[in-house]
Amino acid sequence: MNAQASADSVGEIRALMRKLGQAAVAATAPLALSDTATRNRALLAAAAALHAHSAQILAANEQDLHAARDAALSAALLDRLKLDAARVAAMVRGLEEIAALPDPMGSVIAEWSRPNGLVIQRVRVPLGVIGIIYESRPNVTADAGGLCLKSANPVILRGGSESQHSNAAIHACLLEGLKAAGLPAAAIQLVPTVDRAAVGEMLSGMGEYLDVLVPRGGKSLVARVQAEARVPVIGHLEGNCHVYVDRDADAHMAREIVLNAKMRRTGVCGAAETLLIDRAAPPALQAELVQALLAAGCEVRGDEHVQGIDARVIAASAADWQTEYLDAIIAVRVVDGVDAAIAHIAHHGSSHTEAIITANMATAERFLARVDSAIVLHNASTQFADGGEFGMGAEIGISTDRFHARGPVGVEQLTSYKYVVRGAGQVRPG
Amino acid sequence: MNAQASADSVGEIRALMRKLGQAAVAATAPLALSDTATRNRALLAAAAALHAHSAQILAANEQDLHAARDAALSAALLDRLKLDAARVAAMVRGLEEIAALPDPMGSVIAEWSRPNGLVIQRVRVPLGVIGIIYESRPNVTADAGGLCLKSANPVILRGGSESQHSNAAIHACLLEGLKAAGLPAAAIQLVPTVDRAAVGEMLSGMGEYLDVLVPRGGKSLVARVQAEARVPVIGHLEGNCHVYVDRDADAHMAREIVLNAKMRRTGVCGAAETLLIDRAAPPALQAELVQALLAAGCEVRGDEHVQGIDARVIAASAADWQTEYLDAIIAVRVVDGVDAAIAHIAHHGSSHTEAIITANMATAERFLARVDSAIVLHNASTQFADGGEFGMGAEIGISTDRFHARGPVGVEQLTSYKYVVRGAGQVRPG
Repeated sequence: MNAQASADSVGEIRALMRKLGQAAVAATAPLALSDTATRNRALLAAAAALHAHSAQILAANEQDLHAARDAALSAALLDRLKLDAARVAAMVRGLEEIAALPDPMGSVIAEWSRPNGLVIQRVRVPLGVIGIIYESRPNVTADAGGLCLKSANPVILRGGSESQHSNAAIHACLLEGLKAAGLPAAAIQLVPTVDRAAVGEMLSGMGEYLDVLVPRGGKSLVARVQAEARVPVIGHLEGNCHVYVDRDADAHMAREIVLNAKMRRTGVCGAAETLLIDRAAPPALQAELVQALLAAGCEVRGDEHVQGIDARVIAASAADWQTEYLDAIIAVRVVDGVDAAIAHIAHHGSSHTEAIITANMATAERFLARVDSAIVLHNASTQFADGGEFGMGAEIGISTDRFHARGPVGVEQLTSYKYVVRGAGQVRPG
Repeated sequence: MNAQASADSVGEIRALMRKLGQAAVAATAPLALSDTATRNRALLAAAAALHAHSAQILAANEQDLHAARDAALSAALLDRLKLDAARVAAMVRGLEEIAALPDPMGSVIAEWSRPNGLVIQRVRVPLGVIGIIYESRPNVTADAGGLCLKSANPVILRGGSESQHSNAAIHACLLEGLKAAGLPAAAIQLVPTVDRAAVGEMLSGMGEYLDVLVPRGGKSLVARVQAEARVPVIGHLEGNCHVYVDRDADAHMAREIVLNAKMRRTGVCGAAETLLIDRAAPPALQAELVQALLAAGCEVRGDEHVQGIDARVIAASAADWQTEYLDAIIAVRVVDGVDAAIAHIAHHGSSHTEAIITANMATAERFLARVDSAIVLHNASTQFADGGEFGMGAEIGISTDRFHARGPVGVEQLTSYKYVVRGAGQVRPG
């Protein structure tokens, strides 16, 4: 990273990125035409390489951690950056799971014929060249590389400078996998410079090569990408997630789910940020929820009613209902039943993930039908908002986008979808 | 339209458009929660109103035509603007067809369960508030209004100033339909001013209210929307469509399809703009194709080989391979077989719609698999690129976008789709 980047170096970065773009485009057809078995062979060979080279990967990661400590990066960032045997094993397992998934490519999504004899099929095809810009967590290199390979899309990965050595070591294993299967190395490219000009190029200089951009990182990265990008972006906006505890909730289940949704990991997009409690819920349950959160080390910001439950509750301001804390802080409000909870979520939510806890099936179905979020859950923790937990092997992010269409846009294409998850008290371990 | 639009009037337009936006958002929940029968009742009542008020609609259209003739608009534009009994009847039929379509809303697209007992469903939901900006053709008012109503999305329609009276008369019928079914009038709103500031507001001032924008009109409108819009756009880019006539084509079928693909209507996005002829095709067929186009009044711009066929063929320049003429002009090139045709399309095409004419099934499948366009056809005319012809009742446009996703983005979400159409020589009548 050169603080004195000159016009020359910007020109060099531009030329470098164009070369990556051209190589990715050249890999499009060979990948799209490769068969399932070949791509799976590459995934499994890459998994084997990751396993075989664990020691090198951990050594490379130690280099990154050393530099990060020297730069006095935060403990949270060091944790995201750090690899250990278990995390390498998780990457290996992730690639194996992706290999085991059915191949979406070429499958016939719909088929019909017309009175004039035309037979029309809608079939799956790759998206095209994907650019991914991410930060800190080196496992994204393996997850994103694997997902793009399975879906037959060339990918250009631009990881954070703080994880450059780890990313390079992981990428080398992915290349081994591609080579073993006879697939082009340009199927998974890692931008070989940490110069920030490369990010600018991906945002606005590579429209000719990139079909879609995925920002995977903090709010400022996502905001920059959404503002500057000249190619379609898989938006991954805020997760201001809600848990609503209804009057008919099982008290034990409510307590377990609320604690898990907020505290299992506070820095993920599926972490609960606001707890809504039904005014008609038993006072003992209301108190138990608030006190369990406080006891777990969570700061509670509540409305007047909630402040009356425990002296440690801080007064919530209007801004609290809008805030994605990504921290051990929660806003708590008492509402008049499920419809008021739905109205609160419609007004303050970010349409990401919301859960209702109730034993009343009619109330649950009302919530699931009327809350317009990408994921709505009944009797389960919002922390299940994760591709791996959905059985997708891994994910590249949680999209809060609503729409798409290719070809004629008729009634069906004017719809979106959401995920409805029905549980029996499940919380997410680990 | 006031050429001296003052700051005051801009302020008024802004206030007006905000009011439309708020009303549309307020209609979101009642529409989303309305049942199929109610929405279909509104569609059929609107169709009946259109039929009953044909005379008023044609009188309003005459006002628009009168003003258009005074303004010396082109014959092509007058044709797009003009309504007659047959075109009103087509709008009525369009609404009836939309009513007859299955209701996509609430349907379960996929369902699975996880080892921890969670049951996950992906269900269809409305997109949200849709804004549509269109030009000239008043039937878009009925088609787009009907499609959005069926899919339970509030819509804000902004038609061209040249068709304002026609649009208002048609919109009044749609409102009758909504009223008859007890649905909110704000489900289908027509911007009540032709001030161009309203378009600017829709592009960049209504992000708070609009979930997606659809530009439906000429290249300059689409380009402006893509450049200025602050909300997602259903892109509807150029249709630089190709027909490839293979060595194994049936001569009669090739001639009929080529003529139809180019000349049935030259101003639609599915019109063929480039004809690729296999060098190994019989010279008599090559000559027949070129001469049939010339005889039909089409200007032919060819490579050297094609110029040798007929003295009337003009030399094609490099720009011709990239051009969407939307006129009675075609670029013709001889290529070395199907792979050269695929390569030409990959280099010059716009990924919209391409057709192959051949009796060789292996060659056809190679083309269908390898050409990466929204629609690929075998032995059928590119003019079938139309939602109505696909059995969708109507369409709001042909999207050349590739991607979307909501919720976790895994392997399946990293794919797009295309339409593969297999025919037996079908050409599009009318």
